[in-house]
Amino acid sequence: MEPIKNTFGQHFLVEFLQCNAETLKNVETVKLNLLKSAQESNATIVSHHFHQFQPDGVSGVILIEESHFSIHTWPEHQYAAFDVFTCGPMDPNIAIDVLKQAFEAKTVNIKTIARGF
Amino acid sequence: MEPIKNTFGQHFLVEFLQCNAETLKNVETVKLNLLKSAQESNATIVSHHFHQFQPDGVSGVILIEESHFSIHTWPEHQYAAFDVFTCGPMDPNIAIDVLKQAFEAKTVNIKTIARGF
Repeated sequence: MEPIKNTFGQHFLVEFLQCNAETLKNVETVKLNLLKSAQESNATIVSHHFHQFQPDGVSGVILIEESHFSIHTWPEHQYAAFDVFTCGPMDPNIAIDVLKQAFEAKTVNIKTIARGF
Repeated sequence: MEPIKNTFGQHFLVEFLQCNAETLKNVETVKLNLLKSAQESNATIVSHHFHQFQPDGVSGVILIEESHFSIHTWPEHQYAAFDVFTCGPMDPNIAIDVLKQAFEAKTVNIKTIARGF
């Protein structure tokens, strides 16, 4: 009988602060960087969906075999909230590094939470 | 000059345990219940995207004006991980109640995390 697991995945909640506001404004720029972060961290992409808010700001999600990536940007505050929820072998820290560089974030705060029982 | 906010939203991380496994298996059932939870909690839906894993299990996201809903189900463990990230006036507790009933969850664990600086 398979043992009952009590953890199904790790959830990384990331705050990117003091970013380059221009990079956070446009859906195409944010999408390209999110997809790059998923690919480089070895996530298996199922689908991706991004939305441009007016006048600017972006929300987006990538469904991955291992769970999901999400992003929400507030260019007017040079802030982006990024999540990786993974139950597989991909490496969220690589994704975080890719986006830290892309957004030119001067400060990055990370919380890691075990999901499950 | 607008004061700099240090919190951009509340993130509810919810574990639904000891659920009805059948309800968690099928993408159409999970999608209907997620959309109902978003509507009843007064979220403004931008788009929704769901994926059926084989043989069963579902991942899904709803992009909302206020940020996002996400769901991942593990029917074999009668477990679902649900998130609401909101920066607006909708009520995540209503969404959680809708899904607790729909999934027949015997236990619900909730963490609330302020997103921002």
